[in-house]
Amino acid sequence: MNQSRYDKKLEHILRTSARIFAEKSYHSTSMRDISRESGVSLAGLYHYCTSKEELLFLIQDNCFRCVVERLEQRLNGEDDPLRRLQIFIENHLSFFASNMSEMKVLSHEAESLAGDLHANVSTRKDKYTKLARKILKDLQQQNRQTQIDLTVSTYALFGMMNWIYNWYDPRGKLTVAELAQTLTQLFLNGLLDSGASKTVAPSIAAMTEGVSVWRGQHSEVVSQS
Amino acid sequence: MNQSRYDKKLEHILRTSARIFAEKSYHSTSMRDISRESGVSLAGLYHYCTSKEELLFLIQDNCFRCVVERLEQRLNGEDDPLRRLQIFIENHLSFFASNMSEMKVLSHEAESLAGDLHANVSTRKDKYTKLARKILKDLQQQNRQTQIDLTVSTYALFGMMNWIYNWYDPRGKLTVAELAQTLTQLFLNGLLDSGASKTVAPSIAAMTEGVSVWRGQHSEVVSQS
Repeated sequence: MNQSRYDKKLEHILRTSARIFAEKSYHSTSMRDISRESGVSLAGLYHYCTSKEELLFLIQDNCFRCVVERLEQRLNGEDDPLRRLQIFIENHLSFFASNMSEMKVLSHEAESLAGDLHANVSTRKDKYTKLARKILKDLQQQNRQTQIDLTVSTYALFGMMNWIYNWYDPRGKLTVAELAQTLTQLFLNGLLDSGASKTVAPSIAAMTEGVSVWRGQHSEVVSQS
Repeated sequence: MNQSRYDKKLEHILRTSARIFAEKSYHSTSMRDISRESGVSLAGLYHYCTSKEELLFLIQDNCFRCVVERLEQRLNGEDDPLRRLQIFIENHLSFFASNMSEMKVLSHEAESLAGDLHANVSTRKDKYTKLARKILKDLQQQNRQTQIDLTVSTYALFGMMNWIYNWYDPRGKLTVAELAQTLTQLFLNGLLDSGASKTVAPSIAAMTEGVSVWRGQHSEVVSQS
């Protein structure tokens, strides 16, 4: 919470941009749209970024940095592959559910960045994907079950999790903890498993903590530039 | 193959539009872009549609109509829920893999339609989703295993399947039949199941048939309007 006034304002600009990009796509959003929606003048915006592309980069970079940092903290000291997978899924989904616009932008606008900015985000994303793949590999080896292809299962897991922006309402009846629990069980045991021996115990991790990619409050009012 | 010249040209326009929408988003594509890429004059385009929005509607409507028609044909006379699920997954993935641009447009531009056009596509999509949900419900009941939430599992299945446009290369080593087989097994039995009793037999359905949403050939040259 030691954010400077500068950081807070940048966060407000990025959060607003993510919402507009998610609503009407990066390509059809202008800096003027962002200025109007954020209440920051055009001149003010260019004090925080050099271009709309840099805003898109900062949103994506910030998201992957936050989700990976938070994950590494939670995985620290945990060796059991099953528990590590459970933490991975919970971390991804709770982060996702708190940052639906940002995650939609990650999904839809991955190819809207070019050159170094694209390479930079891709590197973070690859690192994250490899971490998931490694957990699945350890889990398969521990259980001596390697018949399911690792690449397919890694992307199937991301598909199950990332698709939630099409249907899941974080304010609805189904909590993020329940969603994580169900998807973990489905992924590990399948739809038809009685699952008695492998049923995943509910996680003790606090799922109610705020996990917005932005540190400030959503309702925070930022003064005009 | 009883396509009129009119139908063939419309198909060419829709296929080209889907490719451009998938590449740079619906919102940032102009009718002029479509004219340039399709080799059909602007006046010619407006002979086939009244607006860019109608093109987007026709792509989405055509996709859902084709995938559902093809599915209903293949499900016809098949009562076993396990076999029905297998057919559903194979049908979805083989259709998807043959129409990656169209399916990306379905995923990304669902909210770009408004009013009646949106309602029309939503109705088709709901029907398709309900069909999947019904198959999963029958399968759970047949196996007396109803502990996995039906809504979560339905969307998890769509997520696993639809996410492939982010990673799967239909021209790569992994065939669509293998992909369908692996995802079906993963969805039914999970990553950690030895699966001996529930292993899904490879489908006998022909997976090599052409399943482009468009009836014409991809290489077909359409003359200038």
